[in-house]
Amino acid sequence: MHRRRGSGGRASGRAGGPAGGRPRAGAHRVVIVGGGFGGLFTAQALAPRGVDVTLVDRRNFHLFQPLLYQVATGVLSPGDIASPLRGVLRRHLNVTVFQAEASGIDARGKRLLLTDGELPYDTLVVAAGTTHHYFGNEAWAAAAPGLKTIEDALKLRQRIFSAFEAAERNPQRVEPEGLLNFAVIGGGPTGVELAGAMAELARGTLKHDFRRIRSSDAVILLLEGGPRILPGFPEGLSARAAHRLSQMGVRVRTGTLVTGIDAPRLTLRAEGREETLTARTVLWAAGVKASPMGEAVARATGAELDSVGRVIVEPDLTVPGHPDVIVIGDLARCGGAEGEPLPGLAPVAMQQGSHAARTILRRLKGRPAKPFRYRNKGALAVIGRNAAVADLGWVRLSGLVAWLIWIFVHIRYLVEFDNQVLVLIQWGWNYVTRKRGARLITG
Amino acid sequence: MHRRRGSGGRASGRAGGPAGGRPRAGAHRVVIVGGGFGGLFTAQALAPRGVDVTLVDRRNFHLFQPLLYQVATGVLSPGDIASPLRGVLRRHLNVTVFQAEASGIDARGKRLLLTDGELPYDTLVVAAGTTHHYFGNEAWAAAAPGLKTIEDALKLRQRIFSAFEAAERNPQRVEPEGLLNFAVIGGGPTGVELAGAMAELARGTLKHDFRRIRSSDAVILLLEGGPRILPGFPEGLSARAAHRLSQMGVRVRTGTLVTGIDAPRLTLRAEGREETLTARTVLWAAGVKASPMGEAVARATGAELDSVGRVIVEPDLTVPGHPDVIVIGDLARCGGAEGEPLPGLAPVAMQQGSHAARTILRRLKGRPAKPFRYRNKGALAVIGRNAAVADLGWVRLSGLVAWLIWIFVHIRYLVEFDNQVLVLIQWGWNYVTRKRGARLITG
Repeated sequence: MHRRRGSGGRASGRAGGPAGGRPRAGAHRVVIVGGGFGGLFTAQALAPRGVDVTLVDRRNFHLFQPLLYQVATGVLSPGDIASPLRGVLRRHLNVTVFQAEASGIDARGKRLLLTDGELPYDTLVVAAGTTHHYFGNEAWAAAAPGLKTIEDALKLRQRIFSAFEAAERNPQRVEPEGLLNFAVIGGGPTGVELAGAMAELARGTLKHDFRRIRSSDAVILLLEGGPRILPGFPEGLSARAAHRLSQMGVRVRTGTLVTGIDAPRLTLRAEGREETLTARTVLWAAGVKASPMGEAVARATGAELDSVGRVIVEPDLTVPGHPDVIVIGDLARCGGAEGEPLPGLAPVAMQQGSHAARTILRRLKGRPAKPFRYRNKGALAVIGRNAAVADLGWVRLSGLVAWLIWIFVHIRYLVEFDNQVLVLIQWGWNYVTRKRGARLITG
Repeated sequence: MHRRRGSGGRASGRAGGPAGGRPRAGAHRVVIVGGGFGGLFTAQALAPRGVDVTLVDRRNFHLFQPLLYQVATGVLSPGDIASPLRGVLRRHLNVTVFQAEASGIDARGKRLLLTDGELPYDTLVVAAGTTHHYFGNEAWAAAAPGLKTIEDALKLRQRIFSAFEAAERNPQRVEPEGLLNFAVIGGGPTGVELAGAMAELARGTLKHDFRRIRSSDAVILLLEGGPRILPGFPEGLSARAAHRLSQMGVRVRTGTLVTGIDAPRLTLRAEGREETLTARTVLWAAGVKASPMGEAVARATGAELDSVGRVIVEPDLTVPGHPDVIVIGDLARCGGAEGEPLPGLAPVAMQQGSHAARTILRRLKGRPAKPFRYRNKGALAVIGRNAAVADLGWVRLSGLVAWLIWIFVHIRYLVEFDNQVLVLIQWGWNYVTRKRGARLITG
């Protein structure tokens, strides 16, 4: 251990230089930006091999984003859906994890620039993911927070439960100030999951918690600009999801664009007509854009970005003219700017991560990179207890069966990240008791 | 429901006026400040009876403070040791919960003043607890955060784990900047629990997580100004605790006063000599003082406060000359200013809460209040896995047996608050895997 630590000491003149514990001096240095599904799968696929891997993330944990909405609605705690990156990679002695923020790339010098140092690389894998997209209305961010990080989820949780607290304090203000009106903007999977979970919260979990209001009086609006919710799914499933949501008490409004947010006043345009509504709580699930690292890649390599800032990559996921820079996950736009982009799903990022690792290892053996092909495992969206929609390509399901598949798939993903047992128990617990132990207002 | 809600609406001209759902008009109105052990036990003991109870707390949850250090050290998530007050009291239809902040008392007008309203009472129960005490060095608060709230625990967690992250990034700075030096100030139960948990973290949990440092190189200092740690315990148990801690790698220093904190520089005085040490992470466990509500009570009633701001109450826990104002828990100093104060333990607050409820119900029957008598159940402090000390009065234990008692007692307390199953599982899980799934750096 001392030797290793010594070598780290020597190397660390450059803050964050090549790490100790690497297989051998002069090993191929891979630097990965981002510890999401893409980055983590790249590191894990490279781990057993004689490569010197450094994974850089702003946070010290991997976040299982698909369940973030359950943290926001008080079903799960942050710890249930996040795993310390060091824990996940502890057995991979050739992988060093740095909690650091990437600020840019020096493509010629082959260095990743950090806010507090730099990292030399032989191959750079950029898997920095996405952030919220307010389509030019960045001012909306404060009034309508999105759901991307643990902090986002806790902020949403805080707003959702504070609204009920304020209503109990001031029942006479519920109507005029829309204290119990909740507007979810965006009818994609996240919006549907949030709206469904909030309906269960208001009609179920909180039913007996208040004395001066009825939590079931809460109005939950799901606002979608397009003609139907879950646009990524077949029409039949969209319809079934919409039907199920309205059964649960969610007011689903499609073809409804949000044109202004001036909390608690919301301006909408539907069928060409302007209207306003009052909602104390507004949640943003309408869109994401590439993280700033996309622009960093473009600046450094001259790569093109698509309309939401994703890097347009070669079929093998490398940046045009820069085979030593690979972009994967939500940040990558493959199939060219015209072709239908791949959905921003965990399986895409995972498969691209493994592909990036294979590409690197093939090159080390002097073999050419292969084009990436997405093996579509299908898409899932959960609406609520016993209710989900699943499009597995060969079959389309909804209701309990789809929900069980959803549970199974998510638990299975979590297996990698050591929390699955607890999450399963937590779910079971909540399912039986209909309780939400995690509905704390903090921060 | 409508009727009740209507009545709530009518009543709510005064923000936070008497709640709907109360047993009958004109019922005796009890207002409780604080949802800790004292306040919650008062409310629960009054719940079945024909009394109109309003519980006011700044937070929407009851916090199981004895396990806060496990949140700080990444064993448990906030949701595991906190229960929504509304959930705990949901079946008590005569209890209304308000998330609000008490700002003062109008003893003549019999109103509790809130930052955003007021609450009339017939009997007021003040159970506002304690906050950190820096003995006049309030400036230390930023450099040496204490452990009283969920936010405190998450801040401590953030500091503890960030220190290891910084060391991995910059091994050459570990020595000069004391990146891996952790100083816990205060050798009471909290300090002992924190120091022990951090030793396990550094020597166990994180052992394989780093490549350029050895987490076991962390230096954990426990600094106690008095002659021995756990001063509240018999000397024999203090000695055994100190011995066990040093076995775990904690440097226990008694008779050592902290005279200055200028992070990362710490000034100490031991045996009359000044010395300094460098520690990036300093945790405060040295003392608590009464919450500001103590002064509010004094201003409103002329009651005396003791040296740490506790309200000196009558033997029946009422404020002298104000039988309608009862002070319980850590905020109350009973037995007069001279007599040995009761320890700031959950059992004291619980018993005083039940006693306050009995006093109120006796008065309603025209019977006089009885003096409070503390039934001492003993004291427990945990040092680490399989290690604790227990002073049950009739027997003194240490080691595994004491630890098992500690586990049992804490789980049993949690039973009231519906999280015990999950916490038990979480502990078992961590115990088997030695993992800390909750070691996220957030906020």
